[in-house]
Amino acid sequence: MRIAINCDLGESYGRWELGADEQVMDFITAANIACGFHAGDPTRMAAAVRLASAKGVGIGAHPSYPDLQGFGRRAMEMTPAEVRDMVTYQIGALQAFALAHGTRVEHVKPHGALYNRCADDEETARAVIEGAHGVDATLVMVVLAGSVFEDVARDMGAPYVREVFADRGYDANGRLVPRGTPGSVILDADTIVERAWTVVSQGRIRAVTGEWVSVEADTICVHGDTNGVVDIARRLHEALQERGASLLTIGQLHAERMQRATG
Amino acid sequence: MRIAINCDLGESYGRWELGADEQVMDFITAANIACGFHAGDPTRMAAAVRLASAKGVGIGAHPSYPDLQGFGRRAMEMTPAEVRDMVTYQIGALQAFALAHGTRVEHVKPHGALYNRCADDEETARAVIEGAHGVDATLVMVVLAGSVFEDVARDMGAPYVREVFADRGYDANGRLVPRGTPGSVILDADTIVERAWTVVSQGRIRAVTGEWVSVEADTICVHGDTNGVVDIARRLHEALQERGASLLTIGQLHAERMQRATG
Amino acid sequence: MRIAINCDLGESYGRWELGADEQVMDFITAANIACGFHAGDPTRMAAAVRLASAKGVGIGAHPSYPDLQGFGRRAMEMTPAEVRDMVTYQIGALQAFALAHGTRVEHVKPHGALYNRCADDEETARAVIEGAHGVDATLVMVVLAGSVFEDVARDMGAPYVREVFADRGYDANGRLVPRGTPGSVILDADTIVERAWTVVSQGRIRAVTGEWVSVEADTICVHGDTNGVVDIARRLHEALQERGASLLTIGQLHAERMQRATG
Amino acid sequence: MRIAINCDLGESYGRWELGADEQVMDFITAANIACGFHAGDPTRMAAAVRLASAKGVGIGAHPSYPDLQGFGRRAMEMTPAEVRDMVTYQIGALQAFALAHGTRVEHVKPHGALYNRCADDEETARAVIEGAHGVDATLVMVVLAGSVFEDVARDMGAPYVREVFADRGYDANGRLVPRGTPGSVILDADTIVERAWTVVSQGRIRAVTGEWVSVEADTICVHGDTNGVVDIARRLHEALQERGASLLTIGQLHAERMQRATG
Repeated sequence: MRIAINCDLGESYGRWELGADEQVMDFITAANIACGFHAGDPTRMAAAVRLASAKGVGIGAHPSYPDLQGFGRRAMEMTPAEVRDMVTYQIGALQAFALAHGTRVEHVKPHGALYNRCADDEETARAVIEGAHGVDATLVMVVLAGSVFEDVARDMGAPYVREVFADRGYDANGRLVPRGTPGSVILDADTIVERAWTVVSQGRIRAVTGEWVSVEADTICVHGDTNGVVDIARRLHEALQERGASLLTIGQLHAERMQRATG
Repeated sequence: MRIAINCDLGESYGRWELGADEQVMDFITAANIACGFHAGDPTRMAAAVRLASAKGVGIGAHPSYPDLQGFGRRAMEMTPAEVRDMVTYQIGALQAFALAHGTRVEHVKPHGALYNRCADDEETARAVIEGAHGVDATLVMVVLAGSVFEDVARDMGAPYVREVFADRGYDANGRLVPRGTPGSVILDADTIVERAWTVVSQGRIRAVTGEWVSVEADTICVHGDTNGVVDIARRLHEALQERGASLLTIGQLHAERMQRATG
Repeated sequence: MRIAINCDLGESYGRWELGADEQVMDFITAANIACGFHAGDPTRMAAAVRLASAKGVGIGAHPSYPDLQGFGRRAMEMTPAEVRDMVTYQIGALQAFALAHGTRVEHVKPHGALYNRCADDEETARAVIEGAHGVDATLVMVVLAGSVFEDVARDMGAPYVREVFADRGYDANGRLVPRGTPGSVILDADTIVERAWTVVSQGRIRAVTGEWVSVEADTICVHGDTNGVVDIARRLHEALQERGASLLTIGQLHAERMQRATG
Repeated sequence: MRIAINCDLGESYGRWELGADEQVMDFITAANIACGFHAGDPTRMAAAVRLASAKGVGIGAHPSYPDLQGFGRRAMEMTPAEVRDMVTYQIGALQAFALAHGTRVEHVKPHGALYNRCADDEETARAVIEGAHGVDATLVMVVLAGSVFEDVARDMGAPYVREVFADRGYDANGRLVPRGTPGSVILDADTIVERAWTVVSQGRIRAVTGEWVSVEADTICVHGDTNGVVDIARRLHEALQERGASLLTIGQLHAERMQRATG
């Protein structure tokens, strides 16, 4: 029972505050840090890296479509080359802050609309991985479990971990139910914690239609801009730890999986 | 007689073309590549790095104030921390493309208004160097010869090379004459080449008021967005080579200087 | 035989030049002026308005998705409210320059990916018209002849003119053939002029597959960023005038059509 | 005793919230609405205009240097033409929303670093007024009382009102003490209310060094991004009203002043 708890962080921008980075950082093992395209100016990125580094939280790049106003949640029609290059750019920018703080970027999780596109679209998924691996072929991709993104990562031989959302509704095929649909977002902390625990301990999640769906999860996402995120993260962290799960960074988790596979 | 010929490149953006990167690249030894803040989107950066790498031209970051509309030529009041972090960000972004093309960033030359501010203002100069050296302490700074920037680099123990502009007017104190002043910009290719040669061979330049001023130059700048830049670059390259100067990248030039100093 | 010749103008940005506004302005009757979202900073907008005003060319707003890097050619998933408000914003900005130059905005033509979306998608078409008509209900919409945009404008009772592209290929259903397809872009000036003339005089255009397709056109577009645009615009202008067509601004053309309809 | 209470509003952006527009709007008479350059995307602008309009609060444009990351608080070196045009652009954008909501823009107050520059620099002050009056010569400028901006507005014959900050420290010459200096910012609501009352009723304010300084104020600013702004605005509104001051929009206030002057 190994798991990484990941959360999107560094999503303030200039004068605007978002999230509770400092408090959340105590209860997660992997920080997906905004790289300036949907949130996170250079000074905010430096602060997020410093904080993650100080708390031993694994640092990940959280690249996005270039869309501050839309917070990266609006899909954009870009060519694969454009996607690849914008991912390279954003990862490089974050790496620079990691280097400046004596640490390194471990993982990459596309943000918002780019994440959703990767989950469905082979060409975009491939472009993101190429953009990341041009920079560093050891970067671990965070893919939606069971998605096209997972298939592409596997086919390309890219290191990856599979992500499950304990606070989002799934359908009977293991796909996320669109936001806005009944049951798409779960706010109750107890429910979230129990769903997460079922994922970690039994490898399954209950669909909005009642069926149990098998999921293989390496990491569970906590939404950083939800009210109550600190409470949810704290309780998730406590519950998983008390019940015997190992909480690892995404880099550690992937390294262990590789070791077991080859050991 | 060792010299690097540097030029600002990668200054197209999206649909807009600027400069003649492909042709100029044959006649320079150091490319200062825009990093997205005044010009140069990710796809343009990738192209510029690919080109420089293919032609053996040394790659440099050309960080700027965040000002696409003003092309980085409008000074902005930023705190030293903001300057430092925006430089880190831009250098990191360029490094990522260098890594993706199997090469590395050798030097850093601030762009436009940031360059001018560094030449005059100790705090900004220090912030730029800190931003660069957090990422990689071997990055060679391109400083205006005889400026505050040179003083700060020396005091901080940062690697640097001194730059002279053969196509710009100097005053009797060795300072650049402001653009717009008579004699501030030289367009005649012959004159530029001869001024460059005098700098390289005699270590001096003639001021707009007629005096000879001593200058120590490691690198000469060719302005990439001038009409006729290809012709000027070609003739400068030919003249310097024919007359026996060694043309080096900024990284090579600095390395040789260090070797001589310690040899 | 009444026709407006429209052209996208004001598409330079800051340091970057695009198009040949000054020369083209002599041969068109309607200028679609970029409003800062895909091109055209405030100073460029002021210059374009001044020029159009001086030459008696009708001024139109050319609103776009917010995407400088992609030049507004990449579709973005926006809500109808977001589309409506961004159109309002851009039209208002242009109107201000029109007021400052003692003139007014006559028409609105969405740019690039937004134009294409309007041609296909009722919700977007409606949002654009609402955004425009909140500001001024007399603004004439430029719609692709035969598109969803035309249907929506008619249903909403919005003033509109129908546009045909003499330099683009059509299929047998009167739809534009996608760029990149053989025959999608026509570069030969003679061919463009003759196609335009056939549209104006006979109300039909020949499809890439050879069939004649009926089209009702009030305005013909000249692409401002094509090489040779000045020559094409000049020849089109001459040919239409010599052969007896009335060349009108879009506002004049719509006013005449209304008069005839009610007269 | 006539006064307008003005507040900067509409300073949220996309996903990011700032200020308490809805609550503050009950206690002010003039809203300075961000126009997209330092804050306030189109959809946020539409919402702010709708709210102000519904509550009978006078609408003002709050144009800024183009600097989202710096929230318009970092001075930029722009030419007067660039300043003029960017002001025209922003005012036009806001006017469009005002038109769409059946109302109009009454006043203009430059934001942040642009406000400070206007207070000191004649050329910038003139450019802002030219940018505004190109669009609508009845727009009332909000000037720092006793500043260069006031002088320029008077000399140009531009309508203006004079602003005093009850929550900021003044020196013995009636100039604002720079932020960061002891006494520069006042947070205590009682103190702010009493200072405001003294300004309105006695035309004077006490400097940080103890002297009384004469000030002529038409409007008092409440800082919208301060904690406790709602409480301060409410108490200021109550105190001024109870003690017999007339609370007017900036447009009303200026109109009354003109009537008295000519009556």
